[in-house]
Amino acid sequence: MLTNRRQIQIEWGHCDAAGTVFYPRYLEYVDASTNLLFAKAGLFKPLMLKQYGLAGLVVVDLRARFIVASDFGDVVEMESCISEWGRSSFLVHHKLFRPDGALGLEVFERRVWAVRIANEGPVQFATQPIPEEVKRRFTHPVGVSTD
Amino acid sequence: MLTNRRQIQIEWGHCDAAGTVFYPRYLEYVDASTNLLFAKAGLFKPLMLKQYGLAGLVVVDLRARFIVASDFGDVVEMESCISEWGRSSFLVHHKLFRPDGALGLEVFERRVWAVRIANEGPVQFATQPIPEEVKRRFTHPVGVSTD
Amino acid sequence: MLTNRRQIQIEWGHCDAAGTVFYPRYLEYVDASTNLLFAKAGLFKPLMLKQYGLAGLVVVDLRARFIVASDFGDVVEMESCISEWGRSSFLVHHKLFRPDGALGLEVFERRVWAVRIANEGPVQFATQPIPEEVKRRFTHPVGVSTD
Amino acid sequence: MLTNRRQIQIEWGHCDAAGTVFYPRYLEYVDASTNLLFAKAGLFKPLMLKQYGLAGLVVVDLRARFIVASDFGDVVEMESCISEWGRSSFLVHHKLFRPDGALGLEVFERRVWAVRIANEGPVQFATQPIPEEVKRRFTHPVGVSTD
Repeated sequence: MLTNRRQIQIEWGHCDAAGTVFYPRYLEYVDASTNLLFAKAGLFKPLMLKQYGLAGLVVVDLRARFIVASDFGDVVEMESCISEWGRSSFLVHHKLFRPDGALGLEVFERRVWAVRIANEGPVQFATQPIPEEVKRRFTHPVGVSTD
Repeated sequence: MLTNRRQIQIEWGHCDAAGTVFYPRYLEYVDASTNLLFAKAGLFKPLMLKQYGLAGLVVVDLRARFIVASDFGDVVEMESCISEWGRSSFLVHHKLFRPDGALGLEVFERRVWAVRIANEGPVQFATQPIPEEVKRRFTHPVGVSTD
Repeated sequence: MLTNRRQIQIEWGHCDAAGTVFYPRYLEYVDASTNLLFAKAGLFKPLMLKQYGLAGLVVVDLRARFIVASDFGDVVEMESCISEWGRSSFLVHHKLFRPDGALGLEVFERRVWAVRIANEGPVQFATQPIPEEVKRRFTHPVGVSTD
Repeated sequence: MLTNRRQIQIEWGHCDAAGTVFYPRYLEYVDASTNLLFAKAGLFKPLMLKQYGLAGLVVVDLRARFIVASDFGDVVEMESCISEWGRSSFLVHHKLFRPDGALGLEVFERRVWAVRIANEGPVQFATQPIPEEVKRRFTHPVGVSTD
């Protein structure tokens, strides 16, 4: 199972007046982490969107547990993987580890493979089955034949 | 049960390249909506923090369902109330309604009444029991005696 | 000269650990204020972009003076007008007034009327002359004939 | 003259509906770049604030030229240095270079060394002379004696 780990240094502007991260900012880290996980799988989002005519990997359900706060200047580690694949949706599991190794945050994002419906009015999305070749990139190391 | 309703116009900078709201931005609306709900209860956050020596109303658990996307320029309505009170935590329930009245987003925030622990190292919070007078403001209209 | 005034309540998440507004957030207020000024002129941005095939009103030059900081909970007033029209650019002048009426912030945005150049590579913009009918909306009250 | 260079990958959530970076986000990059420049000088901001009783390095004047837009996924380079020292203020000069080496953005931030004035009302800052030892760290390599 492909996992991406990256370090994030908490920025001044990500903290609120309590001196710790303003919680929507954590979700910005999480969104970017999902994109970096796809990039690690060889699916660089700007290209993937074009290649598959995708509007996005739209989040439909989110669950987050905020366990320990992070302060300005902390270097934390975000670990991300896809823990479940459905037909047109998938679950991304993110864990943020504190400098001392403790789990600070855990997030589950359910996302759908979404295309844009051509219409005159507001933007509308439709889900589509996720191509098998996309799923395969997360379970089989890129460049290694499984035949 | 005290409920706050407010209108939000979706801003250009809140949308991503798909043309709809970048999801962490919704949580910024949600956080501000919780503060406005408290203000409606007579608990203006800047004063409440000082009065009670609070560090914040720290979110410890979040659950969100994104049902219909919102576009730049849409005027949506956010409805917020506290659906559950615990000893030191409470659950805030937010619903975002689309211009056509459809439910676009539903969020549950579990927050704790948190004070800051004085220490040398990183910022640490401790939960404390929520004062009864605070809870009472959400169940009894301000200015009406219940004797 | 058409002027837009709007009230902004400083949100918790807009402040940094110093307890006052994180400065890039002011520019979010400013960007939204420009859009609201256009809306007041009858040019609601989502429709205007479609009508004129515009990519945006791209900021090319920015000048800001931060005079007095704003705190969480402050209600400030943003006043915006277009102080200069060029052939394909214009200057938006924003003033933020503090609750006591003092000038807290002054911003000048130079923006260009920009269309997107169709190409394969990165997004590119080209400037175009601003339609006279657009300029006229800021100098002549809507609905009043000047014949 | 001490200079900091860092790479930034443009995130999905930093772009607006035009598909390029929403301009206040650039200022978030810039603010973080100033802090990283100080860190490179041995002045890690969280510690520096405590050591000198600083409220912050408050931006009082900003000038930005947006030359070429950046797209989602672009890896750009931000180069930052302090181009001028005053008694209690300094000028930070930032240049953002595009993947092809072209200058995409240039920003000048005038910042002041600010302490917080103890008072009952809104947050107020006062400027103070910048300690010589702070300035020296940007002109003399750390750890090299100049005697």
